[in-house]
Amino acid sequence: MKRVDYPQPIRDLISRLNRLPGIGPRSAERIALWIQAEPSTFSDDLAGTLVQARKEISSCSRCGFFATRDGCAICEDDRPTNILCVVEQALDVLPIERTGVFEGRYHVLGGRLSPLNHVGPDDLRIGQLLNRVKVDQVEEVVLALSSDVEGEATSNYLADRLKDSSAKISCLAQGLPAGGGLETADELTLFRAFSGRRAWREEN
Amino acid sequence: MKRVDYPQPIRDLISRLNRLPGIGPRSAERIALWIQAEPSTFSDDLAGTLVQARKEISSCSRCGFFATRDGCAICEDDRPTNILCVVEQALDVLPIERTGVFEGRYHVLGGRLSPLNHVGPDDLRIGQLLNRVKVDQVEEVVLALSSDVEGEATSNYLADRLKDSSAKISCLAQGLPAGGGLETADELTLFRAFSGRRAWREEN
Repeated sequence: MKRVDYPQPIRDLISRLNRLPGIGPRSAERIALWIQAEPSTFSDDLAGTLVQARKEISSCSRCGFFATRDGCAICEDDRPTNILCVVEQALDVLPIERTGVFEGRYHVLGGRLSPLNHVGPDDLRIGQLLNRVKVDQVEEVVLALSSDVEGEATSNYLADRLKDSSAKISCLAQGLPAGGGLETADELTLFRAFSGRRAWREEN
Repeated sequence: MKRVDYPQPIRDLISRLNRLPGIGPRSAERIALWIQAEPSTFSDDLAGTLVQARKEISSCSRCGFFATRDGCAICEDDRPTNILCVVEQALDVLPIERTGVFEGRYHVLGGRLSPLNHVGPDDLRIGQLLNRVKVDQVEEVVLALSSDVEGEATSNYLADRLKDSSAKISCLAQGLPAGGGLETADELTLFRAFSGRRAWREEN
């Protein structure tokens, strides 16, 4: 008697699904088996969308956000060009858009400086950023990078490269997350919330 | 200014991924964007495997487990045919196989009796089960269905239909899960663990 496993096509599907972010072996198995019980139009449609999305989406040559053949939704919008928000990756754009707090344009760096991973200034879209700041006469550059060591090193580097421009450089506030109590905040967050404290305002 | 969203092909992909079990809108978004950063061979391969797995896998006409054109790995194995384990779905088979505790064959019912969902005896592979028990001169039928109300009603029904056969009918033990303490067990589990208590054995 041999111990039975799933047929090869199902094992292949499980191992590919397992490579997706956040999908462990158990979830991959559950998804693969669930798909078997669906009409085959489901897997055909999913497969089609997968190929299509990867094929039709490119990176906007100007700002680095996702673009289609019709162009980039942000660059073609009529929003002001003189305020730029610099983010690490294209997927950082929509979380900011959803807050509705920012009405300018974006510049996607394509990563951050990381000597350990051999990512230097030439690997990021820094030249394009400096160029946009000059050509568009940008008045404010908001550095919205990660607040970890590499993110801050990259922000420092950018601020240094931009110091000769007339643009004001700003960065995101650091402090307690909304709804978070003091007891759950780590030491560094609390340190920064304290050192960044501001005068009480009625509208708070 | 318009609030920007992802281009349509990415939105399509997110909404399809969101239909997979255990994949919420956030995970779907994360996976869809992660795929954009991978070489397009990844999405092509995943799409190919999806279509192939759904196309090449069928249900074994004998036992109901997954089968390919080459047949069913369990039915073609040389394991004894006179002990049958009845499960609800094809995906219940491998968890039992992995324990290594059972060396017989399986019979997948294809569901369980559920009057509320209009699932009656004729919707399940019960006729085939009775036939296998007779033709293969099965000596033991292990009912390995869920231990909830519908699962137990189905087990009762099957035991009744099988009572004229010479096969011994058994069902899985109920009690405390391995590693589970009394304080986490619900009342019914504890009741069953108590009423099913057995004499202490050294090998426990």
